[in-house]
Amino acid sequence: MTMSENTLEELKNILRQFALERDWEQFHSPKNLSMALVAEVAELVEHFQWLTEEQSRNLTPEKIAEVELEIADIQMYLVRLADKLKVDVLAAVEKKLAINAEKYPPDKVRGSSKKYSEYR
Amino acid sequence: MTMSENTLEELKNILRQFALERDWEQFHSPKNLSMALVAEVAELVEHFQWLTEEQSRNLTPEKIAEVELEIADIQMYLVRLADKLKVDVLAAVEKKLAINAEKYPPDKVRGSSKKYSEYR
Amino acid sequence: MTMSENTLEELKNILRQFALERDWEQFHSPKNLSMALVAEVAELVEHFQWLTEEQSRNLTPEKIAEVELEIADIQMYLVRLADKLKVDVLAAVEKKLAINAEKYPPDKVRGSSKKYSEYR
Amino acid sequence: MTMSENTLEELKNILRQFALERDWEQFHSPKNLSMALVAEVAELVEHFQWLTEEQSRNLTPEKIAEVELEIADIQMYLVRLADKLKVDVLAAVEKKLAINAEKYPPDKVRGSSKKYSEYR
Repeated sequence: MTMSENTLEELKNILRQFALERDWEQFHSPKNLSMALVAEVAELVEHFQWLTEEQSRNLTPEKIAEVELEIADIQMYLVRLADKLKVDVLAAVEKKLAINAEKYPPDKVRGSSKKYSEYR
Repeated sequence: MTMSENTLEELKNILRQFALERDWEQFHSPKNLSMALVAEVAELVEHFQWLTEEQSRNLTPEKIAEVELEIADIQMYLVRLADKLKVDVLAAVEKKLAINAEKYPPDKVRGSSKKYSEYR
Repeated sequence: MTMSENTLEELKNILRQFALERDWEQFHSPKNLSMALVAEVAELVEHFQWLTEEQSRNLTPEKIAEVELEIADIQMYLVRLADKLKVDVLAAVEKKLAINAEKYPPDKVRGSSKKYSEYR
Repeated sequence: MTMSENTLEELKNILRQFALERDWEQFHSPKNLSMALVAEVAELVEHFQWLTEEQSRNLTPEKIAEVELEIADIQMYLVRLADKLKVDVLAAVEKKLAINAEKYPPDKVRGSSKKYSEYR
């Protein structure tokens, strides 16, 4: 159970095996996994909610060590969900990158938070 | 700007470039990015909230095409956030996998949603 | 500090006083309060994420005792946020009820989850 | 269908009637309603995610008009959820206020975001 190739593909297989060994497949409906993602993202948000933006840019190493485990949880549930839906995460990312490149032309959206918000 | 290597590392660089060209770095504090992640995960949840678990396992191709773009958005903001915090996503995943393997021994948690919930 | 009148108006004043006595006003920007709401709603979601819908309808009294405190947290942050924005929650609710009554005519949306989703 | 008494109790009855007339009770399991709350809170968050805290304190009237409808949605789903769980929202709030008063004594938590975070 190592990530020898360090890829999302490898991670997908590790998580499949992990769920299988624990008979957890039954809980991993896409609906439930989307809820689990909410919970994990909220744990991330909790780290930042009372900080200023500036403080959020300058976390202590101890804080980073906590935050990185929340990031890991999100990544893992995201890969699990994609697997259950037979979605290739990186192929989906490529599609979305192409959409965004067209939707947000640099000349039109540069540097304005107002424009940024409107465009999104 | 293609994902020739199909890795999170490549994605990190693409997203950096994308933000740079639009002068969006100023909006991408970790605090703000954690909020953006919430919004994206919620869009995912919206697809599933009125479905039964069974229905969520059997989405139409049209629905999958929508859901995969939400998955892409989450992946992209997650990589962006990790980049701003100098966190290596896959290294963090490896740490978390080791923690989980110890925390949820198969013999103790197998197949019981009650045990599953308690253990989590 | 009792809710003698049991109204959201009374709650607004109690929460103002609570924040004032602790010098917490500084943290209670609408932005931050919206993040706090996410965290509280996620704690609610965590109670339900691995349950079936049927199980979620039949919680034990112990579970209800936990869930009701999450509901309280959400209500409190919602009132706090509305106060900071000078929004009257119940007046806003009346506006939204009128919008929904027009948007979802019973004859058109009755009993179909598909229609329900589309309409929403 | 008016909120003549302007209370959460009245709102509970209005929402019951609204769901009944549309045969939506079947979708309103506590599990599903918790997901709907996530979606609504996220719509709120979206208004604030790229704003500074200062900007979030000074919304335009147009923005307030949008945000107040999100607040209404959250209030409505919260009351609906509490109703399905037979939870009295304001009684739950009273319990939580008592817990918080004990948990956060003014002398110990005053004015420090660090302490605030730790205490929470």
